Amino acid sequence: MDIVGVNKYIFGAPIETDAVTADIDGSEGNVRFVDVSDDKTVLTCKLGKSDKIYGLGEAVRGINKRGWIYETYCTDDPMHTETKRSLYGAHPFVVVDGESVFGLFVDYPDKIVFDVGYTKTNELKITVGAPDYTLYVIEGDTPEEIIKRFRSMIGQSYIAPFWAFGFQQSRWSYYTSKDVRGIIDGYRKNGFPLDAVYLDIDYMEDFKDFTVSTERFPNFKEFVSKVKEENIHLVPIIDAGVKMEDGYCVYDEGKQNGYFCKDKDGNDFIAAVWPGKVCFPDFLNEEASDWFGMKYKTLIDLGIDGFWNDMNEPAIFYSEKRLADALEKVVSYRGKNLGIYDFFGLKDVVLGLSNSYEDYSSMYHNMGGRKICHNRVHNLFGSRMTRSASNAFRKIAPDKNILMFSRASYIGMHRCSGIWMGDNQSWWSHIKLNLQMLPSLNMCGFLYTGADMVGFGDNCTEELALRWLALGIFNPLMRNHSALGTRDQEFFRFENKEAFKNLLSLRYALIPYLYSEYIKAVKNDELMFRPLAFAFRGDKFAEACEDQLMVGESIMIAPVYEPNAIGRNVYIPEDGMTEVRFKSPMQYEIKEVAKGHRFVEIADDEVVIYIRKGKALPLVKPASCTAELDLDTVSFIGTPDEGFAYTLYVEKGAENGESIIEEKVICP
Amino acid sequence: MDIVGVNKYIFGAPIETDAVTADIDGSEGNVRFVDVSDDKTVLTCKLGKSDKIYGLGEAVRGINKRGWIYETYCTDDPMHTETKRSLYGAHPFVVVDGESVFGLFVDYPDKIVFDVGYTKTNELKITVGAPDYTLYVIEGDTPEEIIKRFRSMIGQSYIAPFWAFGFQQSRWSYYTSKDVRGIIDGYRKNGFPLDAVYLDIDYMEDFKDFTVSTERFPNFKEFVSKVKEENIHLVPIIDAGVKMEDGYCVYDEGKQNGYFCKDKDGNDFIAAVWPGKVCFPDFLNEEASDWFGMKYKTLIDLGIDGFWNDMNEPAIFYSEKRLADALEKVVSYRGKNLGIYDFFGLKDVVLGLSNSYEDYSSMYHNMGGRKICHNRVHNLFGSRMTRSASNAFRKIAPDKNILMFSRASYIGMHRCSGIWMGDNQSWWSHIKLNLQMLPSLNMCGFLYTGADMVGFGDNCTEELALRWLALGIFNPLMRNHSALGTRDQEFFRFENKEAFKNLLSLRYALIPYLYSEYIKAVKNDELMFRPLAFAFRGDKFAEACEDQLMVGESIMIAPVYEPNAIGRNVYIPEDGMTEVRFKSPMQYEIKEVAKGHRFVEIADDEVVIYIRKGKALPLVKPASCTAELDLDTVSFIGTPDEGFAYTLYVEKGAENGESIIEEKVICP
Repeated sequence: MDIVGVNKYIFGAPIETDAVTADIDGSEGNVRFVDVSDDKTVLTCKLGKSDKIYGLGEAVRGINKRGWIYETYCTDDPMHTETKRSLYGAHPFVVVDGESVFGLFVDYPDKIVFDVGYTKTNELKITVGAPDYTLYVIEGDTPEEIIKRFRSMIGQSYIAPFWAFGFQQSRWSYYTSKDVRGIIDGYRKNGFPLDAVYLDIDYMEDFKDFTVSTERFPNFKEFVSKVKEENIHLVPIIDAGVKMEDGYCVYDEGKQNGYFCKDKDGNDFIAAVWPGKVCFPDFLNEEASDWFGMKYKTLIDLGIDGFWNDMNEPAIFYSEKRLADALEKVVSYRGKNLGIYDFFGLKDVVLGLSNSYEDYSSMYHNMGGRKICHNRVHNLFGSRMTRSASNAFRKIAPDKNILMFSRASYIGMHRCSGIWMGDNQSWWSHIKLNLQMLPSLNMCGFLYTGADMVGFGDNCTEELALRWLALGIFNPLMRNHSALGTRDQEFFRFENKEAFKNLLSLRYALIPYLYSEYIKAVKNDELMFRPLAFAFRGDKFAEACEDQLMVGESIMIAPVYEPNAIGRNVYIPEDGMTEVRFKSPMQYEIKEVAKGHRFVEIADDEVVIYIRKGKALPLVKPASCTAELDLDTVSFIGTPDEGFAYTLYVEKGAENGESIIEEKVICP
Repeated sequence: MDIVGVNKYIFGAPIETDAVTADIDGSEGNVRFVDVSDDKTVLTCKLGKSDKIYGLGEAVRGINKRGWIYETYCTDDPMHTETKRSLYGAHPFVVVDGESVFGLFVDYPDKIVFDVGYTKTNELKITVGAPDYTLYVIEGDTPEEIIKRFRSMIGQSYIAPFWAFGFQQSRWSYYTSKDVRGIIDGYRKNGFPLDAVYLDIDYMEDFKDFTVSTERFPNFKEFVSKVKEENIHLVPIIDAGVKMEDGYCVYDEGKQNGYFCKDKDGNDFIAAVWPGKVCFPDFLNEEASDWFGMKYKTLIDLGIDGFWNDMNEPAIFYSEKRLADALEKVVSYRGKNLGIYDFFGLKDVVLGLSNSYEDYSSMYHNMGGRKICHNRVHNLFGSRMTRSASNAFRKIAPDKNILMFSRASYIGMHRCSGIWMGDNQSWWSHIKLNLQMLPSLNMCGFLYTGADMVGFGDNCTEELALRWLALGIFNPLMRNHSALGTRDQEFFRFENKEAFKNLLSLRYALIPYLYSEYIKAVKNDELMFRPLAFAFRGDKFAEACEDQLMVGESIMIAPVYEPNAIGRNVYIPEDGMTEVRFKSPMQYEIKEVAKGHRFVEIADDEVVIYIRKGKALPLVKPASCTAELDLDTVSFIGTPDEGFAYTLYVEKGAENGESIIEEKVICP
């Protein structure tokens, strides 16, 4: 069939990615907007001086991606400095907004290079690894129209369970059930709300997927059930690699049935991750994928109703063969006088062990009987792992909507899970990156997402925690997570407890709004987080604004992301907005503001938001967890137009593994 | 003698650092403002909620250092992310501006930890490595008064030669004289001004200090002379490590005379840097230091009149002993199944080879006959290397003012050289870091300084280069430098040549102002780059402003440091400022602006500055090099008060190794 404004071009013999669900006929003839090289691997188009480029999902830098070079290649790299080309997800969709307005989705599951005015300032150049891919050229009057068309092609986004809009606490690691208990108590005893605690890799027995350490988590089922009574969900991590250990049932079954990825000779491909040597389930093999998905039942039977899939780029510390080669090479340096090149060479040998292209090139999949080298389908691996779980959940527990999000992703995975923004750092610059990634991910279908608040790596400060929280309360996935060896950053540990409690409570007061706007974005294939450039098209200040967002239909946010700030500059894009200064959900000041630039003082215990003219923001009374929110008693702030009605969505149980959602129209 | 407002406390038996030149009597009794722990190693004071802390010289983060933990410890670390505690220089001077106003200089040549409201938000805690140091407590009504007192204690800052205010181009490396010729031609043929080209490590024969590769730089003396005729200075790098090679005279002399640092047994301490194994001249040994300084004569005799001292923290790739141990350890991993802890351990073994405390602890100095472990005097090493050169210059070429700047530094070195801000990156955030470090370094006496414009590591873009240049034209040391393997970034290589040429020309038009304001700051112990917090004390917006600076007496700068920006928010701190929008030195627009916050559109080929009410900015006609500037024909822009006169400083030759500087008072 044809979809209005969408042209599909098939080059060579693409590998099916399942990114697109719509059945679209291929087009013939010249491709509009872009020049296609004779060998089909290079797409170029000229850019006007002020053209803007949106999209690319999970990536560093601004909402406008112009001026850098990106590679869609799922990569485990926790140093998200501004010059990184790849992060964990691969989202090869861009929108050019300028002299021409069009979108491009290059559906190809290995590396694509997007040179967005980096090499030549006035050129977008897309280089695809091989001439076997499907190109979708999407037309529309505005970027939003193009995005909506794209989203309708790729299918409806994942809907997380309502409780997953509550605040969630994580750390690498809470080692024992006593540690977890301490975290819950830390929140509850201080009167801070909380809905979930995460179990990072150390809950397992020797890092073996689907095991729980009986020593550190004795009577796990009872423990899960006990904390569930307190409305706390425990969310364990699942890693892509299966420990090689005879007698460990997951390994034994995988080995016996030939479910693992192979090396070139057909033996199991052996890499190493947390537990040392592992095999990777071949998630591109339907049977293997189904088998692995059903393994989640072990934990679901213990009462678990949420998971996060990690290390599924897949991250590889080293492969058996390359480690041996590398150590031989290191040995050859013994007794030598190493100058610069030798010494750098020595470091490269060791640092280059992880996540190497060489390893990915020597790993093979069985796709419907075809032997396919991993480096042709690299970006699908994490997605398929996650889909395997998601498909299984419907069979295992159709009466539940089980939370699932992943680190690695490709477009298409947005239908079955969320993602978090990966292993960021406790850097001020990553507050802004959190903000900027939200709309870019929304464009690519990922609506249930968020950054690890307060930062995963490196050490935080109390001020950073407060300022990040003031943005974090708007992230659908609102999780505080930190790495081994970093400073403790659970919110109850800081000095100004009152401020943290107030801001956390504000999140809970906002949940009905955030959840409803999320559901609307899902149902309408729209953005929950919109750049001002989209909302106020033609306004040059709005179009250049990189540090404010429209959140849903009613509000604009402009968080502080600099240390020692007394506030920040805010651009008010329209007259008649209502500035709301929250000290807590119950304690706020309101004033009307006029269009223009202004410096707004914002203390670190405050959140300032702006309600659009004619709109209103629904609030409920905060509670200690989502289950205790009173969704029937909604109040409004703002200056709603006459006749304004707010459409609220409320989750009412689940069936077929999905939330049952009720729509309620409320007039303030 | 006593200095008003300065109290000096001697704890234990401090090692003489020569940081302070004033002869100050020690004080008795209680130390004001700070609590001193019984063992004297911890100094604490309470901070009010809005107290600000300035100083610490070369360090990451803002002008206000509050909210992080810093260590004064000279460190070769090129990843200047916001959470690094140490960079290349050690500058243990802070000013507390709040409920109390005072300065602290902790004169101690090894590690000091400054916890500036990091562990406890309301506490400054200074932890000194050992109870042997001199503490100076400096009082004053304002931070500027305290800084002036401090600067008068530590002696007048270095004055660079006038030509060193010209634009300078560097790269690791221009390998041959032909490469250098190409760079000069690239600038000159495009009509871009230029005063110097740098020679990074590859000009040498096998990285041997004071040698020049005869293969790659044949007839070097002639080449130096030829380019000098074109008003180009060549500035070679000098490294701290001397290659171990029998027959290489510097090594032979050092070894024979016992001039190198020793290990615990009295043998030469052997480490490795660029050339492989090296020995370090013992710069804390007066005789060795004098000897090394005179070695610069080799290059001065070839016509060289500028140097940069590098790797003098000292950077150590590895020591002979630790490399052997590390490789043994690596070998022990062979054939093992490495899980997370082993694998991280393996990486740490290799990554931990460089700049290790263990190596510094096994290196010894001969200070006036006393054997002193390096880790008691670590921060003096680079300073003393640089002083050795500076002292020698006066003997070798008293009729010249030879340019000298260093990577490592300690307070005191500001009297004999400048510093550059080390190996930064082509990151947008490092434009802002460049700006923020300028006043902090000025506070500690370092006035001849600048960051490597466009960034040393990582790849730049044309937009980054233009925006950085718009700040770089105000850096006294205005150098474009980049690392091996990064994208070329000489300004003539970009597309919009006109813009680069205009901005470089603007620098030259501004040089008389910048040089004069620099000389004033030197002579008056003041800041050339003042935070708005100092200039507009009591104005809360000025006090929180972290991205604008007052430059000299007449102007304020507010550069753009974000990609894809159409301008930026600027705070105008007083009425009646004149906004000057330069497209080029000859082409500018002027308008008066009122106090307040405003968004200012600034295209990437423009520089916008603000002239203070009552002041004027002198400009001269740009030229292709400093030597060709016509300093007798000065024009002014601005709104000078009646009777306004500008004091201009002009260099007229040199004697005793110092510039002869003439003062001229000009009325617009």
